[in-house]
Formats: sequence, C-alpha cells, structure tokens
Amino acid sequence: MNVDHRRLGRELDLFAFDPLLPVGMPVWLPAGAVVRGALERYIVEAERAAGYQHVYSPPLGRQQMYEVSGHWDHYADAMFAPIEDGSGQIVVRPSNCPHHIVVYRSRRRSWRELPLRIAELGGMFRNEPSGSLSGLSRVRAMVLNDGHHFLDPAMVADEVALVLSMIEHAYAVLGLSGHHYRLSLRGDGARYCAKHMADPELWDKAEAALAAALDDLGVPYEPVPGEAAFYGPKIDVQVPGCGGREESLSSVQLDYHLPARFELSYAAADGARQPVMLHRSVLGSMERCLSFLLEQHNGNLPVWLAPVQVVLLPVNPSDPAQARAAGEVANAARSAGLRVEVSAGDEQLGARMRRARLARVPYRLVIGDREAPAGLVAVNLRDGRRLPPLPAPAFVAGAAAVANARGLDPWP
Amino acid sequence: MNVDHRRLGRELDLFAFDPLLPVGMPVWLPAGAVVRGALERYIVEAERAAGYQHVYSPPLGRQQMYEVSGHWDHYADAMFAPIEDGSGQIVVRPSNCPHHIVVYRSRRRSWRELPLRIAELGGMFRNEPSGSLSGLSRVRAMVLNDGHHFLDPAMVADEVALVLSMIEHAYAVLGLSGHHYRLSLRGDGARYCAKHMADPELWDKAEAALAAALDDLGVPYEPVPGEAAFYGPKIDVQVPGCGGREESLSSVQLDYHLPARFELSYAAADGARQPVMLHRSVLGSMERCLSFLLEQHNGNLPVWLAPVQVVLLPVNPSDPAQARAAGEVANAARSAGLRVEVSAGDEQLGARMRRARLARVPYRLVIGDREAPAGLVAVNLRDGRRLPPLPAPAFVAGAAAVANARGLDPWP
Repeated sequence: MNVDHRRLGRELDLFAFDPLLPVGMPVWLPAGAVVRGALERYIVEAERAAGYQHVYSPPLGRQQMYEVSGHWDHYADAMFAPIEDGSGQIVVRPSNCPHHIVVYRSRRRSWRELPLRIAELGGMFRNEPSGSLSGLSRVRAMVLNDGHHFLDPAMVADEVALVLSMIEHAYAVLGLSGHHYRLSLRGDGARYCAKHMADPELWDKAEAALAAALDDLGVPYEPVPGEAAFYGPKIDVQVPGCGGREESLSSVQLDYHLPARFELSYAAADGARQPVMLHRSVLGSMERCLSFLLEQHNGNLPVWLAPVQVVLLPVNPSDPAQARAAGEVANAARSAGLRVEVSAGDEQLGARMRRARLARVPYRLVIGDREAPAGLVAVNLRDGRRLPPLPAPAFVAGAAAVANARGLDPWP
Repeated sequence: MNVDHRRLGRELDLFAFDPLLPVGMPVWLPAGAVVRGALERYIVEAERAAGYQHVYSPPLGRQQMYEVSGHWDHYADAMFAPIEDGSGQIVVRPSNCPHHIVVYRSRRRSWRELPLRIAELGGMFRNEPSGSLSGLSRVRAMVLNDGHHFLDPAMVADEVALVLSMIEHAYAVLGLSGHHYRLSLRGDGARYCAKHMADPELWDKAEAALAAALDDLGVPYEPVPGEAAFYGPKIDVQVPGCGGREESLSSVQLDYHLPARFELSYAAADGARQPVMLHRSVLGSMERCLSFLLEQHNGNLPVWLAPVQVVLLPVNPSDPAQARAAGEVANAARSAGLRVEVSAGDEQLGARMRRARLARVPYRLVIGDREAPAGLVAVNLRDGRRLPPLPAPAFVAGAAAVANARGLDPWP
C-alpha cells in the first residue's frame, strides 16, 4: 500500500507549510526543489524541441483584464480580492491565458507565424475553500506548466495530436500509469456556444478534432456530455493517486471565445482573421505533478528525478584509503552530472545505510577494505538487488546513462 | 552614444507593457525570455557549484511574517495593500528573506550544516511611486537573483569573499564594466544597532569583515558612513547605464537582526547558538540586469546571451542547392546547441541582411552559388568583420566554443 504524498513530503524533506505563510501555499525545500528543477528542465527542453516560445509574465493582472476574459464573471469565487495600486484594481491572477494573449497582441501577427506556441511555468493563485486544501494536490499558489497555441482552424487536429504525444512521452519518463482520458463535450445542444460563436459547426469540428486525435492515439476515452467549458470542448487526463484519489493533471482545451473577447487577429492573404486558441498543460501544476509522482512511486522517484542519486558509504570513514576512494568516486560521479553525497559520519555503516534507504537514494555504494584498493564499488539498488562489485568508472557510466536517458530501469 | 534600454527593448522585441497589466509590471517576450533563460541557467549553475541549495517559495506571505521581520514598520510605503484570504491578511512579498528563514527553520539545524546557503530566483513586488518607474530599471514586479547564507560568525569573511568572487565572475562573463563598490557603514555611532544587538563589537567585526573582503579583492571602494541598513552594514555594486544613470545591481548585506527576530538557532557543541545572516544578490533583479546589459552593449549582447545567435541567409532561397545547404548548416548549428534562424523570405538579400543586423545577430552566414557546393559559409560579424569563407563545420565548432565558454570575444 503506497503512502500519502503529504507524509512522504515530510519524511523526505521535500516541502513544508509554515504558520507565517498563507494557508495552502507550500515552500519547496532544497530536496523538493531539485526534483522540480529536473521536471522544469525536462519540460522546457521538450517544449523548445516542439517549437514553443517561452515567456515570463507577471503573476498579477488588472481587474479589467479578467473582466474582458470573463474570469471576473465566471471565476470570481476562486479569485483573491483585488488590490488598489494607485491606478486601479489589480489581482493575483487565477490563470495565465490573458497574459499569453498580451504576448500575442504585442505586435501584428501574420499567418506565417502560425502555429504560434507560447509556454511558461506560470505562477497563479486560487482562493480554494480552506477545507478542500490538501498537501500539494490542492493548493492556493501553484506554478502551472502552461501553454497556449494560436492557430488557424485548419491546424487544430495536428496541434492536439502534438500535445497528446507530449503528454504520453511525459507520463512514460515520469513513470506515471493508470491515467485515462476524458473528453468533455457541449452535450445537449448549442446553449453554451450560441453567445460567442456564430457558427455551431465550429463546435462540431472542435469536438470531432479532439475525438479524432484521441482515436489516432489509440487510447480509450470517456466522453462526458455537458462538461465542456463555456468556450469550447476539452480533454482532461485523469491520474490516480493514493486511497482512491483521482484528479486531472494534463489538459487540452479548444477556445473560440477568448480570441473574440480580446479581438485577436492575424493577417492572412485574404485579410484579417481570428485565430483559435488551444490551452494545454502537459505536466499540470508542479505541485500536483509531484504529489502523483510521490504516491505512484511510493517515494522511489525515477533516477533522473531523485534529489540525491548516489550515496557513498565507506565502511570505516576514518580509514584513509576508504575515505580517499569514496571522495574520488564522488567526484567522478559529480563530473558525470550525478547528484552525489558522501555519508561518512560517526555512525555505524548499518545506521548510515538505513538512512540512505529511507531517503530513497537509488544507488548506495559501499566501499570497504576489499573495494578501496581495487577501485571497486558494491552497489545496492532500491529494489533490494546488490550488484556484483563493479569498477567505479563502470558504475558511473551506467548510472549516468540511466539518469541522462530519463529511463525507468534502475540499472542498464 | 548608446541607446536607452527601453528603446532597445521595443526594437528587439524583448519585453512589453500593456494597459491590461498592472503599471510597472513588464512581460518578457520570447526573445527577452531567451536572454533571461540563459542568465538563469548561468547563475543557477554557478550557485550550485558554490554550494547553494535552491528552493521555491510562494510570492506571498502573511502580514504577520512582515510584522516579525520589521518590513511592516520600515517598508510599509513600498508594500502593496494586504489581501484578506479568509484566515487573515496576506501580502505580495516585498522581499524573499523571511521565506528563506522559513526554509531554515523547517527543521532543527546543526553546526555541521553551516554555512547553509539558500538561493532562489524569487518574485517580489514593490509599490514604487508611479513617477519613479522606468522601463526595466525600476519596476513593481521583479524577480531577484536572491540568496541567504546562515553562518557562524567566524565564517563571515570567507562567505563575503565567496560572494564577491561570484560577482566579479558574473560581470566578466556579462561584459559589464565601470562598476564600483560602495561600503555602507553605521556611521556616527551605535544608534542603529543598540536596539538589536547587545554587543557593538559585532558591528565593528561585520564592518571590518566587509572592508577586509573588499581589500582582499583589491578593488577600490567608497565607504559611506551612515548608509548602513538598520540591521547591519552592506556592500552595493553600482553600475553605470545610459545618460548618467547609475544604480545598485549586486549587493551583500550582513544581518544580525532577522535571526534574532525569528529566534533562529543551531545546535553547537556548547548548546544553541544564533546564526548570522548574509543577504546577497549577484545578478540583482533579472529586470535591472537586462537593462544594464542592453545599455552597456548597445543591444549587442554577448554571444551566449543573444536571442538568435546564427542566421543563415541563402542569397537565392529558391535555389535548391542553397536552400539545402542553409538547412544543413542550420541543423548542425542547432545540434551544437546554438540558437539558429534561416532567413529565406521573398525579400532581397540586402533587406534580409539589414534585418539580421538590426536584430543584432552575432553570426550572419551568407550562402550563395560559391559557398553552397563547396560546403562553405561566408560569416559576417557584428563588429563589421567578414571572415574568409569557412567550412561549415569549422564555423559551427568556433561559434559553439564561443557560446559555451560564455566568452566575450566574438570569434575564437
């Protein structure tokens, strides 16, 4: 039975709450920040390779921004109260979409620039009821792996497929499993779209595009009529955690509403046209993503995400040969990009081994009288396996290969 | 005569303001975000190598947090109004220090952990008077390259020296020059410290430690009596920009005040002791750092920071051999980690060259009938030099070497 992420977070020193911080706003401690840094590097690289352009936008907007977007009318309950800043009311943002619209409209756009893909690890804030807050899975301050595509309507199918392939790749390297797709449709008619779209055919097309992308991916999905956002249909990826918990992590939404509200356009051969927006998140919020990673792996994060990947345990740290050998292996492993610690305190080997095991360190390397002079390491894995003593360079090469490949196998 | 960063920011599409964003809160457009991403990777690597532990903390705190820190009394004018969140008043933070204190006190600390160095690219907010706002140099939302060291008093000199060496290294790779050091002292007596420190000798020691570190560095500095913070002396690095502008970018501050206010301690051999805090910023805020980079380099950022590093200009893009050669060189350069564009529109070569020059692209590579079949590129540098036609692999290797070394020479 796996353990709740809140307990793992405490035991592994990953994140904390504090009476001086706002309720529901965690701080990521050094070990948790290492995991998040690795997640961020992964997704930023993947996005760059997929043609996204990254931006940084301020985590506040003017109240008027959210009046135009419709959040002020539809999401006021989840928003924090505005602040008077001397020139009007500003709010900590409940979503990043209007900020990416600001990027889009910062200059004239041409059809040549489409598909235009904007991405950001964007901080946002939701005043969730205090009773619903829970560890990292439901918080009031989060950082979303957010992205928006600005598209010609003909591009929708390809772009949805691109996002779904990114989601599947991410879940594979994260080792998340048991997820299933949900397709939220408008349901019983055009009542949602009538207000914003002259042409209900666009709804049909959008729903068909999302369904076709899911069919192409070859995964089962559950259509949920009536659950679409008021601006368009969406795909949610539902992920299971501990104790029956299941929540949305990734999402893909089609939106014909915000481009109209913000009067977005691009120059096409036949004049000005309005783009379609696609909202998407691959990893979801960094907070919720870590909560699922911890629960599904029971704390044993994939090697590439582990806060400490290698710990060196000289049997007798006061023995100069063992201490020197441990230091040399540590340096070689660090040079190969691994995160390494040397455990050389006063305690007995057994106690130090136990602490490294509780910290879920993937590679625990014992160096004693046999290993030190021969340049060997005795490798203990988290699955209980003990590898036959290896030359240190062979261990470093193997562990670095696992970490760099973001593989799930603990040893090549 | 160099150009103001606000104009360069518009011309190079680096950042923007928008009527829907709060006053003084810029958005970093894709080109600007590339520069910032490179700056962030540099400083995070440098900090990791120097033994810092990174964290992520929420950009808000409870009002009580800033009452304890003293900000509520001393900085209220620069703080935004608090927000009622259902359990009390919370504020967008004016500084990150108390959040790093929360990290420190998240568990018991031992002398073995000192020096403990915490770092974060931390978002913070200051309600500066609207008349004082200016481009990126004075804003209301900023991200500070922030860090705090928790120290035994005996460690102060070494830690200050470490920070000063990081500052000098950063200015060297950024190509910033003309900076000078200012040492702010308590001045005419113990009136600042009497309230918080039983032992005025600590002031003497702290001032002497800062002065000694500057002396060891061998740089001249200007002592400014009476300018110390109420909690301790500090070093500011003053950087010149355009039109006589000079502002603080980096800073190092010693603080005996906050550890007492937050009752911080660590276990030493002889019982509980109170750490000293060192506040420091190497790059300053990302906003102000970019403003100085733009102005000092007149937009010609060092190669490793340039949004686009290489542009390929086939003389006749509709010629298949030229187009293929341009594509191949672009792929090779991308594989080497360079940021590359192919400029192959309908315009004449001269117009495309001009646009690449205005965009300050360090390497503009012309490929015509002579170059394409021979696998050569004709390289134009920003300083006006034209290199003799080079084999494409030699260009890629040379440019990648410059970029990876974060060197300032435009060509090896």
